[in-house]
Amino acid sequence: MNETELAFATIAEIARLFRTGKLSPVELTELMLARIERTNQKLNAYLTVTDELARVQAKRAEADLSVRGKRKTRTDRGLLHGIPLSLKDNICTAGIRTTAGSTILRDYFPERDAPVVTRLKQAGAVLLGKTNMHEFAYGVTNNNPHYGAARNPWDMKRIPGGSSGGSAAAVAAGLCFGSIGSDTGGSIRIPAALCGIVGLKPGLDRVDVTGVIPLSVTHDCVGPLARTVADAAILFRAIVDGGNDKGEGHHGSGAIKFSKLRLGIPREFFFDVISDEVQKSFDVAVRSIRALGAKIKEVSIPLLAQTEQAGNRIAWAEASYYHQRSGWFPGRAAEYSEDVRSRLETGMKVLAVAYLEAQDQRERFISQLREVMENEAIDALMVPTTPIAAALIGEETIPVGKIEHPARALLLRLNRPANLAGVPAISVPCGFTAAGLPIGLQFIGAEHDEQLLLDIADTYQRANPSKIPPSLTA
Amino acid sequence: MNETELAFATIAEIARLFRTGKLSPVELTELMLARIERTNQKLNAYLTVTDELARVQAKRAEADLSVRGKRKTRTDRGLLHGIPLSLKDNICTAGIRTTAGSTILRDYFPERDAPVVTRLKQAGAVLLGKTNMHEFAYGVTNNNPHYGAARNPWDMKRIPGGSSGGSAAAVAAGLCFGSIGSDTGGSIRIPAALCGIVGLKPGLDRVDVTGVIPLSVTHDCVGPLARTVADAAILFRAIVDGGNDKGEGHHGSGAIKFSKLRLGIPREFFFDVISDEVQKSFDVAVRSIRALGAKIKEVSIPLLAQTEQAGNRIAWAEASYYHQRSGWFPGRAAEYSEDVRSRLETGMKVLAVAYLEAQDQRERFISQLREVMENEAIDALMVPTTPIAAALIGEETIPVGKIEHPARALLLRLNRPANLAGVPAISVPCGFTAAGLPIGLQFIGAEHDEQLLLDIADTYQRANPSKIPPSLTA
Repeated sequence: MNETELAFATIAEIARLFRTGKLSPVELTELMLARIERTNQKLNAYLTVTDELARVQAKRAEADLSVRGKRKTRTDRGLLHGIPLSLKDNICTAGIRTTAGSTILRDYFPERDAPVVTRLKQAGAVLLGKTNMHEFAYGVTNNNPHYGAARNPWDMKRIPGGSSGGSAAAVAAGLCFGSIGSDTGGSIRIPAALCGIVGLKPGLDRVDVTGVIPLSVTHDCVGPLARTVADAAILFRAIVDGGNDKGEGHHGSGAIKFSKLRLGIPREFFFDVISDEVQKSFDVAVRSIRALGAKIKEVSIPLLAQTEQAGNRIAWAEASYYHQRSGWFPGRAAEYSEDVRSRLETGMKVLAVAYLEAQDQRERFISQLREVMENEAIDALMVPTTPIAAALIGEETIPVGKIEHPARALLLRLNRPANLAGVPAISVPCGFTAAGLPIGLQFIGAEHDEQLLLDIADTYQRANPSKIPPSLTA
Repeated sequence: MNETELAFATIAEIARLFRTGKLSPVELTELMLARIERTNQKLNAYLTVTDELARVQAKRAEADLSVRGKRKTRTDRGLLHGIPLSLKDNICTAGIRTTAGSTILRDYFPERDAPVVTRLKQAGAVLLGKTNMHEFAYGVTNNNPHYGAARNPWDMKRIPGGSSGGSAAAVAAGLCFGSIGSDTGGSIRIPAALCGIVGLKPGLDRVDVTGVIPLSVTHDCVGPLARTVADAAILFRAIVDGGNDKGEGHHGSGAIKFSKLRLGIPREFFFDVISDEVQKSFDVAVRSIRALGAKIKEVSIPLLAQTEQAGNRIAWAEASYYHQRSGWFPGRAAEYSEDVRSRLETGMKVLAVAYLEAQDQRERFISQLREVMENEAIDALMVPTTPIAAALIGEETIPVGKIEHPARALLLRLNRPANLAGVPAISVPCGFTAAGLPIGLQFIGAEHDEQLLLDIADTYQRANPSKIPPSLTA
């Protein structure tokens, strides 16, 4: 394998090379650090590169896995052992700067690792660094005025999406083998879709969010971004509560049979505002899923119409409360970027009765979604991840049909329902626009059905392999 | 026994008379209906007397318990079988008007019984009627402009307290053998204290509140009012989730040994605003508890200081949201009494960030209370129920020391902490003011420790027997 082939290999391939002595964790880590050194200045995917720590961890992994080492000292921690990863910069890392993309936390060096970091360390992973993000995860463009915009590896003039934009850009550009992001209204799936990679938002409370700077406690989730579904599955199993859990969802574990799979496409909401190119790409994906043997059925979930307002009210109020409680807002309002400050101001004005109504709507939506999936015997929903591909950096509105829509609302729109319901959702690449920008396909599952979603997306991806950004294959 | 002796007998005494053929459920029910007929016009304790239903239920109980009946048809449902009770008028009763003390629900005849009613029916109880209450349970005077003020049997010019004021007045006046009320900020304990009876607020979620018109879902509880702790215990066991549960709390079941009992008296909050007479009465109760062998220790729970504001914010917002959602407020604002309307207006203005802060304070208070009780090895707290005895009807402010305090805030003040923490609390009579008004003593327990509180209060009450209002003994 040449350098590019190595940088874009799957975790399983790398793990095999490690164990056959054809590649060492130290060699691979050096290769990744060199790539970051070469590429990050223009991509701006990493805010902090933890090269020293990465080298220490890689050496330890090398000793642990060495085929030349004594049997007794060899400790194989599994597929992630020695694999170079990155972490979104709102995930606390002991002694390593954790900015959450803000100036307020510019010099914040947490005392403790977040539990999700501890789990990756226990799995033997190598931490390359902390990735760029939308300030305080409160936005979806990753246009960060404090640290500069992260850029999309498919077109450097365009956003990678956000808020986990640095994570997605780093994974798509072969600057790590996977990343852990957070998703409150699509912050894992949106950048995954826009950067042509895979992003899994687990169900609420499935992965411990302790030590991750909160945005909206009703919605916040932590999950993996990776180039393949198989890689995302390896990362998910390392961080999910209960350890290497292989699917305790409704559908048990193991490869699924597409001939027994029933997917639902909601009649409402998801296709009301959507670009022609995304719609076409989705239609092609439907044919591919059918060709793989799955049944597809149109279903009706009328309460989807309420998810945008309910999700916004809850997120706005909870975000403002967190920033107020932390003593940052409104006292240090001037230190926020304009868009985040404006949303925090909106959140301060939400009335308690409106918040309680939104929580009620959330409960009713959860019930309706569950009922529809049970009554229609649907295993998962199949929808687009975003109605548009990557916007230009700084582009505030995007035309869909003949109407200009705010880019933020467009990108969030199809992601919020899974956050509001607290159910898992995965985005997997499903094609490109004429301009060569990636498009994402989203599967939304029932509670605890992450493994089913991973199985569906894996089968789909193997039949429709993803690509590597052309500029980075050289 | 003469009529008065019968009317004020304990449930256990009545049950014995039923089973020895010395009294029949029909005789007793007629006696109670006659007393209500005679007394309720001045007391205004009942809004609806269900005399027809009561007679049917009493006949059925009589047949079930008849000593002359055939063995086969005899069905003894236990101590409540044939016992005449009342229900606060916010508890839904199938086909029986349930006003919640409002004009908005003046003609509301629920289709279904609340589960708590079903349980009492299964226990064979006889329903005498629905009792007066503060409008929508949103106040503590029971000064109801729509149906008239309920009056205190100890002094007809005075409030019985509220919001379960009609229940307390009916029990104290011997117009039923017990009543089920609801308690959001003291609505069972306050009228129990002011009417010289016993009131138990169970822990949150210990008794099903389905079918009880809500006030504040974070705080709402349903529980018994009775003349003796033993009677309250019988009622509680009939309605607690899980049926005849005999105490699954931290302390197990069975009579407690006072020599092993440790009670805590909080240094903060409870004695900051308190009348001399209540303080003196409390001090006497402390001596009595010590004489019974219990250890008493001063403890510090600094977060008690936040409970008033936090509890108010949560209750205000949740109450307004319920009335808004029901389509009553603000559309039908004119139909509310002035004080309730004013509070609903306040609740509409509570900000979501303030509500979320209050919920955070609640969680911290719960943790601190639990820690103090564990660290100090305290079985329960011992405090006054209210800082004052019954106010005059219409008295808006009451002087304590040299400061005039709003009557509402005074009466709520010492009750809210148990609601905010979701833990059980019981009020038991502990003496009288010079003017002959009852004073209440409150025990607050740990989660699920209702049985322990009942045991403590029972021992205390047996050593310090309660009295009957003098005007009613004739």
